[in-house]
Amino acid sequence: MIDEILVPALANKAAYLKDLIELCAIPSVSAQPDRARDVQYCSLWLSEHLRDIGLKADAMETGGNPVVFAEWKHPDPTRPAVLIYGHYDVQPADQNEGWTSEAFKPAIRDGYLYARGASDNKGQFLAHVKAVQTWLKAKGSLPVSVKFLIEGEEEIGGPHLGPFIAAHRDLLACDVAIISDSELQCRSAQPVITHGLRGLAYFEVEARTAARDLHSGSYGGNVQNPIMALAQLLSGLKDDKGRVQVPGFYDDVRVLDAVERADIARLPWGEAHLISETGAPAAFGEPEYSVAERRGARPTLEVNGIWGGYIGPGAKTVLPAVATAKISCRLVPNQDPQKVYDLVRNELLRRCPAHTTLTFRTFGMSAGTLIDLDSPQIRALARAAEATYGSRPLFALEGGSLPVVNDLQKHLGKPIGMLGFGLPNDNIHAPNERFALECYEKGIEASIRFLGEL
Amino acid sequence: MIDEILVPALANKAAYLKDLIELCAIPSVSAQPDRARDVQYCSLWLSEHLRDIGLKADAMETGGNPVVFAEWKHPDPTRPAVLIYGHYDVQPADQNEGWTSEAFKPAIRDGYLYARGASDNKGQFLAHVKAVQTWLKAKGSLPVSVKFLIEGEEEIGGPHLGPFIAAHRDLLACDVAIISDSELQCRSAQPVITHGLRGLAYFEVEARTAARDLHSGSYGGNVQNPIMALAQLLSGLKDDKGRVQVPGFYDDVRVLDAVERADIARLPWGEAHLISETGAPAAFGEPEYSVAERRGARPTLEVNGIWGGYIGPGAKTVLPAVATAKISCRLVPNQDPQKVYDLVRNELLRRCPAHTTLTFRTFGMSAGTLIDLDSPQIRALARAAEATYGSRPLFALEGGSLPVVNDLQKHLGKPIGMLGFGLPNDNIHAPNERFALECYEKGIEASIRFLGEL
Repeated sequence: MIDEILVPALANKAAYLKDLIELCAIPSVSAQPDRARDVQYCSLWLSEHLRDIGLKADAMETGGNPVVFAEWKHPDPTRPAVLIYGHYDVQPADQNEGWTSEAFKPAIRDGYLYARGASDNKGQFLAHVKAVQTWLKAKGSLPVSVKFLIEGEEEIGGPHLGPFIAAHRDLLACDVAIISDSELQCRSAQPVITHGLRGLAYFEVEARTAARDLHSGSYGGNVQNPIMALAQLLSGLKDDKGRVQVPGFYDDVRVLDAVERADIARLPWGEAHLISETGAPAAFGEPEYSVAERRGARPTLEVNGIWGGYIGPGAKTVLPAVATAKISCRLVPNQDPQKVYDLVRNELLRRCPAHTTLTFRTFGMSAGTLIDLDSPQIRALARAAEATYGSRPLFALEGGSLPVVNDLQKHLGKPIGMLGFGLPNDNIHAPNERFALECYEKGIEASIRFLGEL
Repeated sequence: MIDEILVPALANKAAYLKDLIELCAIPSVSAQPDRARDVQYCSLWLSEHLRDIGLKADAMETGGNPVVFAEWKHPDPTRPAVLIYGHYDVQPADQNEGWTSEAFKPAIRDGYLYARGASDNKGQFLAHVKAVQTWLKAKGSLPVSVKFLIEGEEEIGGPHLGPFIAAHRDLLACDVAIISDSELQCRSAQPVITHGLRGLAYFEVEARTAARDLHSGSYGGNVQNPIMALAQLLSGLKDDKGRVQVPGFYDDVRVLDAVERADIARLPWGEAHLISETGAPAAFGEPEYSVAERRGARPTLEVNGIWGGYIGPGAKTVLPAVATAKISCRLVPNQDPQKVYDLVRNELLRRCPAHTTLTFRTFGMSAGTLIDLDSPQIRALARAAEATYGSRPLFALEGGSLPVVNDLQKHLGKPIGMLGFGLPNDNIHAPNERFALECYEKGIEASIRFLGEL
């Protein structure tokens, strides 16, 4: 029966590719003020496109870049509603950084569409749009209610989406939300459903030892050095194997069950992959866990930045008054960001070197996310993925955070299905971003099947 | 007999002050390109002034700002020659930083001349010029040969003075060099002769753990963090009391004799002074030594700068690939800078954390200086200081380095008398720089006496 939808999708693939090319040609770079008109235009193009295929659609005010909202209401109100998230803004693209073809003149080579935004995120969300279009064209209706929420500030961490979601709970109300965004990945025939994201506690600690910068000749050896004090503080936070040494840090960490460990072991995130991706000579971290486990299932403490004293070229004999470090902890579900921050802060205060004053500043506290794999909607997504890609999806715990996931969970309280359509080597956020034509087609198929499975 | 010279000096003090005011009105800021003409003008003003008072004088090419060289040759070639060093360039002065009167409109208030450069170094070297002028006016001759070497790049660490000295050894040949510069100080009636300066070994160490900056969500907990690695490296270089933990670091340190320790104990460089100067809550350093001993008689290891990762406002979840620190050791006489650098470098390499590559870069290696207090010229300077200020000068080991001292020692090989005429609260390198009128007059007197004592 689903073939009634899949066959016309295949028949239309040239037209669907043309739509993607048209969308990718719009330089909707949210970070560049001189692209503001392009960003606006992109939201209007999308709204019109969604109306053209039969949805009620609008570019809605947010105080920042518009959110494109579109809806198709099933006549039977007992049918479930799916909210599909995407973002139409893209990363900047500097032609001089090594683009083979122009970033906003989409080009097809070797089975890939090359363009900024092709994979992140235009190609991925448009696959869902094309699935909806196919259903509507073939059957005149969708099997469920569908809503699209396509924002224009994802690449600038824009502050407007959270408040928008909070202010439009009724409009956005759904039974499941679906996200196919860049952080998620499949490889060849192996789909991956992300069912956990890490949270974050991000803060800054400033160590001060004097009222002003001093001359190291006159005062060196006589005043506490804030860089040394900070180094001594930081060095005690981890042991030489990378284990965090803050008492209580790991207390609330959820223990993986056997199925999770088995799935994680099948992810292509081993040491060899890590080395080739990072250029590090070897993986480094808690020896009791695998690379893939450490990536998503273990909390981290990393220093993200440090500065103090003279940082220009050559020599300046300054004994600085202040040194500062930015520190963040990635947190697994169950861990409370505020509690972890307090543990680390108290440990730093407890071990504070002599004659050093510490000042703290927090920048972000978000809890981790864990999606219930047993919900019927996530099971439907898994069936759709397996039918499309030919193998059961792996369930992965991802290392990063997605603010939109936190916002959706908080305000809508429904399961979130994260199934990526891109490949790890799509060069997102880099020159020669691309999206495999096959990924686009498979994404359309997966979305068609998912709507049918619900 | 010396009264024949001191009495006319006193009689001329108004005129001598007028000359200093005129000199301080020239904004000879070497660091600011738009002041280049003022710097040039200052060198010409000085040459003319020195010619006016009876010396042979010239502004000489250096490749950078001119060196003013002036000479009065004693008819008896067996009489000693004195080389007097000074610098006519000054620090920048930003009127908005809190100047009460304009930095280059010298103003007299409460017994002080307020102007940029008044103490550092125009007032101090002009005191020697006025002493020479007084001698010549009163007696028609000087008791010794006198040479002036007044440079214009001291405040920018200009690279031209060293080569100039090396290229003009014969011209500059002398029996003793005299420096009255900002780093040296007297307090009330207590003159200080600096007989030691610390050397310096300055280098940079870069810790690299990956080929590129990484996303801390995807790679945190799985790759060595270069900031953490650097922190762990640095933290082991000193213990919690500030003692350097590099094996062999203190091996060649000269032990103070009883006279030196007694003199150092009389210097006004105690903890209370340190706290008021620095705003540090307490002194911090090797507990076995006093603050004043640590200042000049002990070597140091200080981190002068550190940077890595994201150092802007707010949060960025980067796991950096590189972190870098600038480190310098102040060295006491006897210590070999290269040897000390090798010790520290080898210790860092020995303790290098896992998966971290260290790269070193050196920026400056200079040995410490120790002046022979028993030379007849330094004894003459001490007698002149005692007669002028009413108490025996203390002999101090200073914490800093003076490149000119190294260059003079290397190329001329004669004792160097360092007797400051300024006060610790002259606000050099700061708003409201000033020079006490009494200090100027005492400086002239001390110089007159010194020339007579030789």
